Parts: sequence; C-alpha cells; structure tokens
Amino acid sequence: MNNSKGLLIILSGPSGAGKDTVLKELLAHNDKVRVSISATTRQPRQGEENGRDYHFISREQFETLIQRDGVLEYAEYCGNFYGTPRAQVEAWLDEGLDVVLEIEVQGAKKVMAKCPEAVSVFILPPSFAVLEKRLRRRATDSEEAVQKRLAAARGEILQAADYDYMVVNDALEDCVSDLEAVLQGEKCRSARAGNLIEEVLKNE
Amino acid sequence: MNNSKGLLIILSGPSGAGKDTVLKELLAHNDKVRVSISATTRQPRQGEENGRDYHFISREQFETLIQRDGVLEYAEYCGNFYGTPRAQVEAWLDEGLDVVLEIEVQGAKKVMAKCPEAVSVFILPPSFAVLEKRLRRRATDSEEAVQKRLAAARGEILQAADYDYMVVNDALEDCVSDLEAVLQGEKCRSARAGNLIEEVLKNE
Repeated sequence: MNNSKGLLIILSGPSGAGKDTVLKELLAHNDKVRVSISATTRQPRQGEENGRDYHFISREQFETLIQRDGVLEYAEYCGNFYGTPRAQVEAWLDEGLDVVLEIEVQGAKKVMAKCPEAVSVFILPPSFAVLEKRLRRRATDSEEAVQKRLAAARGEILQAADYDYMVVNDALEDCVSDLEAVLQGEKCRSARAGNLIEEVLKNE
Repeated sequence: MNNSKGLLIILSGPSGAGKDTVLKELLAHNDKVRVSISATTRQPRQGEENGRDYHFISREQFETLIQRDGVLEYAEYCGNFYGTPRAQVEAWLDEGLDVVLEIEVQGAKKVMAKCPEAVSVFILPPSFAVLEKRLRRRATDSEEAVQKRLAAARGEILQAADYDYMVVNDALEDCVSDLEAVLQGEKCRSARAGNLIEEVLKNE
C-alpha cells in the first residue's frame, strides 16, 4: 500500500516444483520485483552463468562473507555453501522494490527467524508423481541424484506448513496469479501499514 | 485453494468510506461471493428494501433470535439492534462460498473473537476531509447526524489496526483489486490448507 519499503519474500519448494518458471513469469509481469542472486561454492551446472544464476565463489570467499556478516543466511547442502548476500537485498527493499529469496528450507527458516516481516511461500507440486516425472525429465542428473532429490523433496514438502503460504504449481498461470495475490494482499496487512491511520486522520 | 469451505470476511469502515460501492463491485466480478444480510430493528431509510438491505425486524423478533443463538453477533448502536443471522452464513460457507459480513466495529470484534478463521478488512477513506465531503453529499442526513457520524468515524478509524487488513478506498478500482487480492491470498495461507501436504504426498 503506502508503505515505502518493499516486501521480502522467501520462496521455497523442492526441485521440480517449478520455482524458476514461476519466478520468471512473476518477473515478466512485475517490474517492481527483484530476485536475490545467491552465492554458492558449488560448481556451475551446464548453462548456468555467474552473476545471473548464482554468484559462484570459492569456499574462502564465502567464509570471508560470513565473518563480515555479509550474508542474510547461509547453509551447507550436499557439501556446498549456499547463502544470500545481504547488501543488495537491503538496498532493493529500501528502494521500495519487492525482493524474492529463492532458498531451500534450512536457509528459509533462518531468514524467517531473523526477518519476521518476511513473507514465506512454499511452492508445491500438484502431486509427488508429477514431481518425479518433472525431475526425470532433467537429463543432467544421474539416477542416484534423482533418488537423492526425491528423498530431499519429501522432507522439504513435510515442512511446507512452516511457511505463511502454500501455492500449488499445477497450471502455471494460476500459480503465478496466486503468488501475485499473496504479495498484493500482504501489502494491505495492517501490520505493514505504518502510520497510515495517522495520515488519514491528520487532515481532520 | 483446495479448501472446500468458503472464507468468512469481516468488512468494516466508517460511513462514507464507500463500503457499499466496493462490495457492489466485488460482487459484480466474483460469483462465489455472498453478502450476509444483517437484521436490524431500526427503521428503513428511503430506498432501502427489506431482505435486500437489511432484514427489518421488531425488537421482539430480534430478542427471540438472540435467545435461540440465531445471531453470529449483535450490537446496539444509536438505540437500535444490528446483528448477523447465523444460519444463512454457515450454509453458504459450507457450500464453499465466501461470505462478507459488512458490520460495524463492535460487531466485528465479536466475530473476530468467535471466529478466529475470519479475515477482517477495514476500508479507509483516503483522508478525513474526503470522508466529510462524501458524508455531506448524502441529502438524507441532518447536520446533527453528520456531526454524529464524523465523531463515530474518527473513533472507528482509530480501531482499524485491530483488523487483519486495511484497504484505502481512493480509486475504487484499486480498492476492489486490493480486496480481491486479500481474498485470493488468504486462500493460499498454510493455516487454511487442511490436509494439502498429505494429498500431495499420498501418490508417492
């Protein structure tokens, strides 16, 4: 509403839930939304680009960031660090832009604890069978990796109730519409209204 | 989302905030929304119709309703009873329809306490000056009545923060869009998701 600061949005969901596609659609229709680029120590996958998909940095660089309180959260996952550099996120929020953190469950919970004003959204697949089908379509992963991701997905989905919202990604269009409604609705929350009542009454 | 029960929506706001116009627009674009018709013991104003604007009933009839637990809430306001008959509201919710209760602040707080799952929305005027202008345009009210309404409005606006959401009615279209987003977003709340997670995992 008339709150000048943007919304901090935590977006999670298992591999294969379609977070990337949903985000791409959200960004295509909303020029006031930014996506935080995570930093990671893992190797880039084919087609991934430094500074677009992730900031690919060394373990040493990551540890320096941590020491300087330069990450909003970080977690170790499958032997690699993943984290959210703080400075860019805060600059965008101050500009009134909404900032999406696409992070996994461990990191999400840390941000929820640290930033209670954040809005957390979990993207669910319509069913586990659909999730498995989507994961198997990725040619880049070995069978072992698929099994690992499925087990991880189940564990993550069981934690979806800890998020403020759950949005099912069955029809992409409906999923994006729900996500947009969540953001627009959250901006009308009384808890975010600041001094709106005083503003309305001041011309009395 | 996949919750079969409808949303119970508490809608308040001072006279002149434009609740009726906002509601009319909401209904025009959403065929799954119903508005509860309040019962009142006050006299109909010019143009008001029994069963459309209110159920105009006698004090005796109202007291009988209260005794039979047939009102969701009731309050006395300017010497008259106003209340929400329970049966129709619950039938609509069970059908999966969203039901709007357009009620004043006293009654709203009673419903909030009794129905914690209800979504409460306060419609604000863009400024108190605009509110006064809108109220004075009503030819039906005497100056004394206008002054009474302005004093009541100030008191009500000061309680807006007790509602889940505040929506400003400046441009009607934006106000209705915000209200629709609030409803769509609320349906994605994890707290309303029922057994969605189990549903997603059951085909595993």
